[in-house]
Amino acid sequence: MRLTVYLAGEIHSDWRQELIEKVQAKGLDLDFVHPQLVHDRSDSVGEDIQGPQPNAYFRDLAASDVNNFRTEVLMQKADIVIALFGEKYRQWNTAMDLSAAITMGKPTIMIRPEEFIHPLKELSRKTNVTVATVDQAVEVLAYVYE
Amino acid sequence: MRLTVYLAGEIHSDWRQELIEKVQAKGLDLDFVHPQLVHDRSDSVGEDIQGPQPNAYFRDLAASDVNNFRTEVLMQKADIVIALFGEKYRQWNTAMDLSAAITMGKPTIMIRPEEFIHPLKELSRKTNVTVATVDQAVEVLAYVYE
Amino acid sequence: MRLTVYLAGEIHSDWRQELIEKVQAKGLDLDFVHPQLVHDRSDSVGEDIQGPQPNAYFRDLAASDVNNFRTEVLMQKADIVIALFGEKYRQWNTAMDLSAAITMGKPTIMIRPEEFIHPLKELSRKTNVTVATVDQAVEVLAYVYE
Amino acid sequence: MRLTVYLAGEIHSDWRQELIEKVQAKGLDLDFVHPQLVHDRSDSVGEDIQGPQPNAYFRDLAASDVNNFRTEVLMQKADIVIALFGEKYRQWNTAMDLSAAITMGKPTIMIRPEEFIHPLKELSRKTNVTVATVDQAVEVLAYVYE
Amino acid sequence: MRLTVYLAGEIHSDWRQELIEKVQAKGLDLDFVHPQLVHDRSDSVGEDIQGPQPNAYFRDLAASDVNNFRTEVLMQKADIVIALFGEKYRQWNTAMDLSAAITMGKPTIMIRPEEFIHPLKELSRKTNVTVATVDQAVEVLAYVYE
Amino acid sequence: MRLTVYLAGEIHSDWRQELIEKVQAKGLDLDFVHPQLVHDRSDSVGEDIQGPQPNAYFRDLAASDVNNFRTEVLMQKADIVIALFGEKYRQWNTAMDLSAAITMGKPTIMIRPEEFIHPLKELSRKTNVTVATVDQAVEVLAYVYE
Amino acid sequence: MRLTVYLAGEIHSDWRQELIEKVQAKGLDLDFVHPQLVHDRSDSVGEDIQGPQPNAYFRDLAASDVNNFRTEVLMQKADIVIALFGEKYRQWNTAMDLSAAITMGKPTIMIRPEEFIHPLKELSRKTNVTVATVDQAVEVLAYVYE
Amino acid sequence: MRLTVYLAGEIHSDWRQELIEKVQAKGLDLDFVHPQLVHDRSDSVGEDIQGPQPNAYFRDLAASDVNNFRTEVLMQKADIVIALFGEKYRQWNTAMDLSAAITMGKPTIMIRPEEFIHPLKELSRKTNVTVATVDQAVEVLAYVYE
Repeated sequence: MRLTVYLAGEIHSDWRQELIEKVQAKGLDLDFVHPQLVHDRSDSVGEDIQGPQPNAYFRDLAASDVNNFRTEVLMQKADIVIALFGEKYRQWNTAMDLSAAITMGKPTIMIRPEEFIHPLKELSRKTNVTVATVDQAVEVLAYVYE
Repeated sequence: MRLTVYLAGEIHSDWRQELIEKVQAKGLDLDFVHPQLVHDRSDSVGEDIQGPQPNAYFRDLAASDVNNFRTEVLMQKADIVIALFGEKYRQWNTAMDLSAAITMGKPTIMIRPEEFIHPLKELSRKTNVTVATVDQAVEVLAYVYE
Repeated sequence: MRLTVYLAGEIHSDWRQELIEKVQAKGLDLDFVHPQLVHDRSDSVGEDIQGPQPNAYFRDLAASDVNNFRTEVLMQKADIVIALFGEKYRQWNTAMDLSAAITMGKPTIMIRPEEFIHPLKELSRKTNVTVATVDQAVEVLAYVYE
Repeated sequence: MRLTVYLAGEIHSDWRQELIEKVQAKGLDLDFVHPQLVHDRSDSVGEDIQGPQPNAYFRDLAASDVNNFRTEVLMQKADIVIALFGEKYRQWNTAMDLSAAITMGKPTIMIRPEEFIHPLKELSRKTNVTVATVDQAVEVLAYVYE
Repeated sequence: MRLTVYLAGEIHSDWRQELIEKVQAKGLDLDFVHPQLVHDRSDSVGEDIQGPQPNAYFRDLAASDVNNFRTEVLMQKADIVIALFGEKYRQWNTAMDLSAAITMGKPTIMIRPEEFIHPLKELSRKTNVTVATVDQAVEVLAYVYE
Repeated sequence: MRLTVYLAGEIHSDWRQELIEKVQAKGLDLDFVHPQLVHDRSDSVGEDIQGPQPNAYFRDLAASDVNNFRTEVLMQKADIVIALFGEKYRQWNTAMDLSAAITMGKPTIMIRPEEFIHPLKELSRKTNVTVATVDQAVEVLAYVYE
Repeated sequence: MRLTVYLAGEIHSDWRQELIEKVQAKGLDLDFVHPQLVHDRSDSVGEDIQGPQPNAYFRDLAASDVNNFRTEVLMQKADIVIALFGEKYRQWNTAMDLSAAITMGKPTIMIRPEEFIHPLKELSRKTNVTVATVDQAVEVLAYVYE
Repeated sequence: MRLTVYLAGEIHSDWRQELIEKVQAKGLDLDFVHPQLVHDRSDSVGEDIQGPQPNAYFRDLAASDVNNFRTEVLMQKADIVIALFGEKYRQWNTAMDLSAAITMGKPTIMIRPEEFIHPLKELSRKTNVTVATVDQAVEVLAYVYE
């Protein structure tokens, strides 16, 4: 059974590549989709398509519409959503995507460092499984195929 | 990932062909569906199937049922809906299809000339992305695959 | 049984007042809600709340968000949606609201002049009842209580 | 028409009291519900009910279940959700609640200081109306009753 | 707890009045709604509102829209649907209403004479409770309040 | 685009075979599913699987459960539902299946002889397209692929 | 805010009365609904209404339909579902009701003795809050009103 | 038509293997998914992934999250759910899975020994078909393809 996994969260580290390689090493029948990973493109895509905006505020909003469109298309196709909270940035988008996935009834995995146990405690309890490392998330995925 | 796109809106210009060709030039993995494009057939299909109707009013209604059936079948299969507002006609069907798609939770793109910013402003804000040209819509679609 | 009716559509004539008075004359147990009826306020409400915007385009969008918020709140509370298409303006908002209501499964009535039979034929067939006058719409409402 | 508003977000300032007083001053027919506002009680409620837990991690999780229960009960009764992002803390719960409300189809208002425009840009575009102050949120609520 | 019951089915006998009186005698806290009970009005309501139609076929369709509107409004407000199959007529509307109610997740009771066990067997098994008499249906309703 | 069509209704004539052959002659990319077509098997399947039942009533109910299971599995996979009302029998199952399909939001076609216009008028108006012959239904299906 | 609570589970002890009294002592604005509490009536209600059945098997099924009808009516009206697992009987109905409530998105509380931690562990993790005593459940309810 | 079947219930006997072999002998086009069948792994998977937990209670909960994740992923892909109640253990998970499947609208089959007719009577009536043996369940599956 082929399943599609949406990888939400931090785009400043290479955790997606690490996770995908470990999944492939196990031979799991999974496809992966994710948000735009090039941060600059993610910020500029609104102006890239719509042309210059009046100021930084409207530049941001123009980019957001295109990013939201991409996320909505891909998340609707996903059977599983994994969200990773990294150690920097506010990462409200990660919380937004994970909460949307939970509310849509998607099975979910949260990856977060232990220092974030407290601020993420409510979201963690709404997620199916919360782990601290990419390796653990891969083990959870592998368990579906045992 | 193969996605299906419903192309709603104006049938008096060749914007669909233009969009499809530009998508193919980019090698995007997209299928396209759309309403009946031959206007006369779209207006006569009720009588073509049901036989002559008492007057123009009932001729219109007989055609509408078949057109609505086609739209409903194809839009339910679509992952994305794009709606283009042209410069002529009232185009209530375009607004109807786009609003139905938004309410069904489909990711959506609106293409409209700038002169229609004001009358389409509320619908525009409910749509994921609003652009002014077919080229821009193609760029939004391409962004999903980056 | 008390029911709530959302009155969508044209805000440049007094059809809502006429309809409400006729409903009251019949003693029907109905509440009415509707969009902002003062056109200027509807166009300026974004800047009224958010302050000056860079240009007319962004002024329009700021207003749209507040109008959409109001419509969404009130339409979700409505048991019935009536949409009137007047003889002027493009009225894409009317088609948007009626199509959204139909897709949400709300029972609906369309009021439109006969000259619009053709361009509204598909939307008309998705609506429960289509009539030409406010008096007829009142009769349809009254029928629920017979 | 009486409506219920859920006030999500920061519990370290008195913004809810300010908003409620301003709403009452305008005579709007609104009820308000919200999460537990006493931070210590919110953190200890799990142990208060379940007894001592093995460590801080399990103490957090026990509290989260009760907080999530409360939020779920009250948000399901709400017609409108307002979420305020304050200037401190990570506030993932605020993003979680707002995203859940949007996904459930609730009409929403976000209040955030301008310095958070960039990190909240995608969530902002999914929210019906985003404003910078409590006063502006009150104006949006008042608009529903005009 | 006050509940609303939609009484679908045959309009040529006085079973609704009988059922309502027996419910009142038991003091159950129930409201009742139902389709138009005057058969001639039910058939003529389209022409009564829309004016003369070209022929009997279109007369029927005009009436159906108004009847469907009424049914849709009232059934959406109902907590329980009871459908009675009488001994005459084809009663496809009764099967239509009951099947729609089941599919909408409404709790349902079917009343049918024993001679109809065979042709109604599949629909009977999708209904919560099937009985042969109005008295039995009243007992089922009363059980909710024990 | 490959679509699946559920063929509900009369099993005493060979209309399904006729429809499928005409669809194949047109080269339409359609799959067909349908209820059990062998009437005796449809009536005996409960006892065939569960063993002898106490009487005809319970024999009927045992069969109904298996028939309902089959219908539910196949109708959930269908993109389109066609229901034919023949000239004999009460055919409440046909009305039940068509009404369930409409309520589930499936695009629908009704085939019925003209003598049934009146008793089927309300159901007809909830169906997307109503026709009198199998040939007309094939034309409606073909229109989706034009 | 008045809320309705469905009390599922064991009917051989007086836990519902205990819970209701403790809730009243706290002055919480809650209504309670529940299944039939008289075990014999719950088992005989099918024959009480339908008359004698062929054997114990069919007697059971006739009763079940009426019990399911009652549960479905009342659970749909509930804002909160509490399920108590007692120390005797298999109590599959309790698991059935709690799982149905969770799947319907109702906020839920499970009460179970500690000896059942292991066999109820998966269901416990899908429930919002799991406690061991009625007193603890009352505290969870009270927390909603703090 | 290829269908996916989720096999819920007892993991201490080899009923799944028996059912799958009998289905293959009939050449039915079915895929099968199921929970983890190795009981020890099912109980230890939480600690296997998360590391040692403070005590048996938390060990159970850690395992439950991973088991629930697996069930949720696979059941959402299933077209049919079969649940078998064995003669030992409390099997609340079996009732939980079957009730969740019914509430999600999945077509369902229950297999249970006759001694459990009474305690499973309500759940049985909500299931599409209840049988006593694996052979009978295979016959029900085969009927879909006749």
